Amino acid sequence: MTAYDELMSFVRETEALSAVAGRTGWDQETMMPSGAAEQRGEEMAALEGVLHARRTDPRIGDWLEAAAPADDVAKAQLREIRRSYERSVKLPARLATELARVTSVSQGEWAAARRADDWSAFQGRLAQVVKLKQEEGQALAAGGDVYDALLQDYEPGTTGAEIAALFGGLRPRLVALRERILGSGTTAPQLSGDFAEAAQLKLAERLAVTFGYDLSKGRIDKAVHPFSSGSGMDVRITTRTDPADPFNCFYSTIHEVGHATYEQKVDPAYLLTPLGSGASMGVHESQSRIYENQLGRSRAFTSWLFHQMQETFGDLRVGGPDDFYAAVNRVHSGYIRTEADEVHYNLHVMLRFDLERALIEGDLAVADLPGAWNERFARDFGVAVDKPSNGVLQDVHWPVGLFGYFPTYSLGNVYAGCLHRALREAVPDLDAQLAEGDLSAALAWLAENLQQHGSRYVPRETVARACGAEPEAGPLLDYLEEKFGAIYGF
Amino acid sequence: MTAYDELMSFVRETEALSAVAGRTGWDQETMMPSGAAEQRGEEMAALEGVLHARRTDPRIGDWLEAAAPADDVAKAQLREIRRSYERSVKLPARLATELARVTSVSQGEWAAARRADDWSAFQGRLAQVVKLKQEEGQALAAGGDVYDALLQDYEPGTTGAEIAALFGGLRPRLVALRERILGSGTTAPQLSGDFAEAAQLKLAERLAVTFGYDLSKGRIDKAVHPFSSGSGMDVRITTRTDPADPFNCFYSTIHEVGHATYEQKVDPAYLLTPLGSGASMGVHESQSRIYENQLGRSRAFTSWLFHQMQETFGDLRVGGPDDFYAAVNRVHSGYIRTEADEVHYNLHVMLRFDLERALIEGDLAVADLPGAWNERFARDFGVAVDKPSNGVLQDVHWPVGLFGYFPTYSLGNVYAGCLHRALREAVPDLDAQLAEGDLSAALAWLAENLQQHGSRYVPRETVARACGAEPEAGPLLDYLEEKFGAIYGF
Repeated sequence: MTAYDELMSFVRETEALSAVAGRTGWDQETMMPSGAAEQRGEEMAALEGVLHARRTDPRIGDWLEAAAPADDVAKAQLREIRRSYERSVKLPARLATELARVTSVSQGEWAAARRADDWSAFQGRLAQVVKLKQEEGQALAAGGDVYDALLQDYEPGTTGAEIAALFGGLRPRLVALRERILGSGTTAPQLSGDFAEAAQLKLAERLAVTFGYDLSKGRIDKAVHPFSSGSGMDVRITTRTDPADPFNCFYSTIHEVGHATYEQKVDPAYLLTPLGSGASMGVHESQSRIYENQLGRSRAFTSWLFHQMQETFGDLRVGGPDDFYAAVNRVHSGYIRTEADEVHYNLHVMLRFDLERALIEGDLAVADLPGAWNERFARDFGVAVDKPSNGVLQDVHWPVGLFGYFPTYSLGNVYAGCLHRALREAVPDLDAQLAEGDLSAALAWLAENLQQHGSRYVPRETVARACGAEPEAGPLLDYLEEKFGAIYGF
Repeated sequence: MTAYDELMSFVRETEALSAVAGRTGWDQETMMPSGAAEQRGEEMAALEGVLHARRTDPRIGDWLEAAAPADDVAKAQLREIRRSYERSVKLPARLATELARVTSVSQGEWAAARRADDWSAFQGRLAQVVKLKQEEGQALAAGGDVYDALLQDYEPGTTGAEIAALFGGLRPRLVALRERILGSGTTAPQLSGDFAEAAQLKLAERLAVTFGYDLSKGRIDKAVHPFSSGSGMDVRITTRTDPADPFNCFYSTIHEVGHATYEQKVDPAYLLTPLGSGASMGVHESQSRIYENQLGRSRAFTSWLFHQMQETFGDLRVGGPDDFYAAVNRVHSGYIRTEADEVHYNLHVMLRFDLERALIEGDLAVADLPGAWNERFARDFGVAVDKPSNGVLQDVHWPVGLFGYFPTYSLGNVYAGCLHRALREAVPDLDAQLAEGDLSAALAWLAENLQQHGSRYVPRETVARACGAEPEAGPLLDYLEEKFGAIYGF
């Protein structure tokens, strides 16, 4: 065996163990009995210890030095292995193990605190998580910016300053658009009624399949926070239902299907290798968002969905496909990020980005977080947060230590805007197809031009190759202004 | 840290990883998408490789030599660690990895072959499993008996010859009892009707809780073959339903609850240590069988169950509690071991014991297995096997390599007979309690005298301490003869 083959064989086993760890995380949020949290923390810590030992195994350094890549794919494998190895050796094993243990326990406590709407029950644990993440960032940054160091886990090659600049550019046109909509005098219609859970889940499954989700390599379960998990031949999603709001279930399902089909469509030759998953969180989010918004919330597709929902639930008591489309895209200042419309969504993300950057940089204490959250929310959304579960306790990310993750949501929206523009050029009759509930051409274009490549190219290049141009915010803003101008009559 | 502390810390991590592996096995039978089998095989192989490396880590040998146990519990920990270590170092890593990979794939193929009733589709894979298990047995036996070597994984300290002798003693009285029943001219009543799955599952959950199952540390799902999995704070069971036969669901649930509560009741001080699980498969089976049979199928408890089932399903169309009791305990020559009555059950086990011993010793070829099965079945049960799913393909054990497991079922029955005699002496008014659906005194006696100890004592001692006498077959046979003599009027 060559050094490259030995390295790949070792890394493949590590990827397999990592898949087990990921599925154990899935189990924790969907299947685990409530009394098992403490034992699970110990299990995850042991597994994380094994993974850390493998990722920092000094033989990887030797193999990397000796490996002679035979082609560009091998070069890309080595690029990803080197990045991961260099990151891992900077992180002390003790800290990796401690992070796994604490975030595992923290997740259960967060869920309980959210249910009880009790911030004080969770504040101490979150402070512990923040402190550990600061330590992690310091270890990884090696003197550089601590937040930037954490960002690399989600969006390699990006900095907090770049993101702040990008968000600075997005913000004025978004704020202006929001004000025009709220000042338009137009009130979008709203669905009302009681939508049975079983019927919601059945239609959600149909939507998942319509958007290309392969149930022979996945499954759909319920969870508090919808997510997608896994890669290759076992990619699972979760959803949730709200009897008063079936769109919550349907669009979070389509969103997670965007993540999941990306994983399912990666070239099988990359299975259980560093190239076998999506290129970054931002690129991942571009898939979930283009599925959910540019395709799923389009005028054309919603006319098909309108008829499906009528068949499932009977009379929807909205005027027709136009009113239904306006209801799907209704703009309103809500508390919950995952339920936000396309106009407000990035405002939710910017709030979290600024707060988490301040937390990690030490400019904001965890004790002051609810106050800072509520103040910023009132400013951006014009509404006072009424309870922690509608505010600072709503997301799972911080409790499990995912600092640096949030901004990738808005990066994904920017990428989705660019991909949507390119897709429309490649498939000129897209709307006619969407109106028939036919996603096949759109899905084939995304699979061919982006999804199959997995991590073969770096994130920005992955998007640029698909779009034929460097990603920028213009297409997203143009799309939003055109779409909501039409709905709100300006 | 002392050598003992270092050893225990290392072993505790291994136990935690082993718990993850066990839960991954649970996932495979309950949740895994059908297309994920191949990837899962690779994942399990990687995890098995890690576990094998830990279990054969030469530091364990050094620690065992240096460790000075402070008390009897520490001595028992060292006894179990030494047994596991000595076994593991005999098994080549290549073979352990290959076994994990092949049995994982094999399980999916068995399930498909069973569904299709196609022995030929599975024969080649089973031959591969048998060959690997023979290699394993040879490596472990180091010149001794190959089957005995495999037995040690399930019932340490027992030999095939001892079991053959015990089964030789059981058989004459069982055969005589079976003949008296079938010749009695009495036909037991039988339940008929269509019992809705949801109602069955609801009552099964109530029965699980009645028999002490703690759902905050467990969960109930459906699977082809009911099983219990896990230890400590996360012990899961599965069940299945048959619309025509609710007893199948109820009694397999009670059976698995016997296994699961044993694990849940082990002293929490032993959590994630070698003492933290049941003492052996035979002792485990003594719990599942005393729950299911001596308690669950007693005249007293079935009168309570009769009323519960009437409330759930309406008129059962049997004469009353006496007829219901006779229906629960109806003796008939069925194909399926897990549905067998108490009289036939051990005949099913003896068949498998003889065949698997011959397979492993090389006296029976896998190609000849269905013929040997069907011939023996016709002899013992007086019925010809009609299809592989009612014969050689019915059980998951051989497909996943569990050779040496089957005889522990009958050992468990013998132990349950002894425990039942002792329990009746300790709780004289047991029947009055069971008639009220009150299991608390029986469960407390079992938890106090047996379950809490986990693997603190070796299997035979575990049972002997609870019974106050060495286990023997007499009490089981006395119990069966008295019970079925009363039902069948002799």
